[in-house]
Amino acid sequence: MDENAFQKRLAETAAAVERELEAQLALDPQPGELGRPRRLIEAMRYATLGGGKRLRPFLVVETARALGRAGNGPVRAGAAIECVHAYSLIHDDLPAMDDDDLRRGRPTTHRAFDEATAILAGDALQALAFTILADPATDASGDTRASLSAGLARAAGLAGMVGGQTLDIEAETAPMPLSPEEVRRLQAMKTGALIAFSVEAGALIAAASPAARDAFRDYGRAVGAAFQIADDLLDAEGDAAIIGKRAGKDAERHKATLIAALGIDGAKRELARLVAAAKAALAASGVGEKGEVLRAAAEFVAMRKR
Amino acid sequence: MDENAFQKRLAETAAAVERELEAQLALDPQPGELGRPRRLIEAMRYATLGGGKRLRPFLVVETARALGRAGNGPVRAGAAIECVHAYSLIHDDLPAMDDDDLRRGRPTTHRAFDEATAILAGDALQALAFTILADPATDASGDTRASLSAGLARAAGLAGMVGGQTLDIEAETAPMPLSPEEVRRLQAMKTGALIAFSVEAGALIAAASPAARDAFRDYGRAVGAAFQIADDLLDAEGDAAIIGKRAGKDAERHKATLIAALGIDGAKRELARLVAAAKAALAASGVGEKGEVLRAAAEFVAMRKR
Repeated sequence: MDENAFQKRLAETAAAVERELEAQLALDPQPGELGRPRRLIEAMRYATLGGGKRLRPFLVVETARALGRAGNGPVRAGAAIECVHAYSLIHDDLPAMDDDDLRRGRPTTHRAFDEATAILAGDALQALAFTILADPATDASGDTRASLSAGLARAAGLAGMVGGQTLDIEAETAPMPLSPEEVRRLQAMKTGALIAFSVEAGALIAAASPAARDAFRDYGRAVGAAFQIADDLLDAEGDAAIIGKRAGKDAERHKATLIAALGIDGAKRELARLVAAAKAALAASGVGEKGEVLRAAAEFVAMRKR
Repeated sequence: MDENAFQKRLAETAAAVERELEAQLALDPQPGELGRPRRLIEAMRYATLGGGKRLRPFLVVETARALGRAGNGPVRAGAAIECVHAYSLIHDDLPAMDDDDLRRGRPTTHRAFDEATAILAGDALQALAFTILADPATDASGDTRASLSAGLARAAGLAGMVGGQTLDIEAETAPMPLSPEEVRRLQAMKTGALIAFSVEAGALIAAASPAARDAFRDYGRAVGAAFQIADDLLDAEGDAAIIGKRAGKDAERHKATLIAALGIDGAKRELARLVAAAKAALAASGVGEKGEVLRAAAEFVAMRKR
């Protein structure tokens, strides 16, 4: 599929997710509510609305579509995952963590608001993710909604994103650099788990067969790993004006990356291998031509400029 | 029911919840896991294990029991709520929030570990709550598991606990003291929502009739409001050696409490009114003699020493 067609599909899902998040984070009082903490909601809106590629929701929507399920359910599941992604960025940027002032070229949430509001906005976004997933509007089947909630909780928690972030912080001050295998494991938790779950959520909500789910799991894991390597290459080689944050910070901070473990060329070879693995998994999934967008997504993830 | 029998029931649930949390937070690797972030898990264990009354799980278990449902499902739901409660205490104690060094007479989590670990431990505990609730071991029905997840997410999020905490922080620096009605609303969100949801979870998991669920909702709201007033009275009148933290801090900080809004005597009258309302709701629920423990719980909440 050509670049323009792909970008159009990406933009369509991004717009649908934006609408869903806008509705979830309305500033007006909702029926039955006791009160609206306006400043909190404004911080949640600041951190979630107004753009971004929405890669994770895109993977949910396109996986579901490849498996024959359209409609707003996958968009809602994608919006829920985006809430978790946004909350993790808010908390990662805090002074006690990465202490970042800029994110996507504008002040981080604790800079634009204050630290307490940023912590609470992150906490409320995590809760909102489960509010969205567990709502019958996401899927008519209670079993599917519970499986989506269980999957997101696992991908976001100590066995996934938060656990990986902890290992990442520890690695910065570790006496020895991590081995390539340790870096892979850390990144599979820190960023890979949520991306892989995005694909899994699409398969869950489309009620895919066990064999198709297995193939999509392999696809999701490969794309998740590829995403992180591409991100690390951007940091090492990118231009601050393009990536919206200062480049070269990973090396300064002794971040555990595959570039540190394998060198730039080694990381690029691993990236190419992962894109091939993602395409092979798609071929094995049995979706045939319907997998076209997801094949393009694997390449997009590996080659993106920001 | 006499005080000894009540304390015995309370201790039984606390022990069962402790076992469940201990199993959820095992330090050994779990099947299929990529890695165990030990320090994170140690912080999560520090914040959740080793005691406490476990009032919220007690309300889940005893509500379910009064409605005819026993077994480990209600204990698991209670443990999930306890994870959310524990995470909220970790984050509330952070320097950017209440900046507390002591909690239950020992160092707060960010003091015992560090701030980044405390933020992440709180985040992972919130995720763990949904991992537990959405697991088929909590209830065989996917609809019930999804309803439990939706209810907890709502009680914990911007319309509940986190929203209330935001309003609470804003009230400290508000130009005018809050009206009694505003304080009630704030507290219904900040602490009331999670306590009320504990009762609701018990009713959900016991598949109570709509009429019984309504009566239990009234009971839960009254107990939740009573709990907060009792807590504020303890702060105003309590002994630091008994309550495990310094007394009189609310007034110093201009916290929005019903004592500030109504005076000590006014707050005590409201507390008595709420206990009576809780008992009336129980009487209306149709559980009869089986409501005995929950009647005692309403009195316990109002009269506890810490």
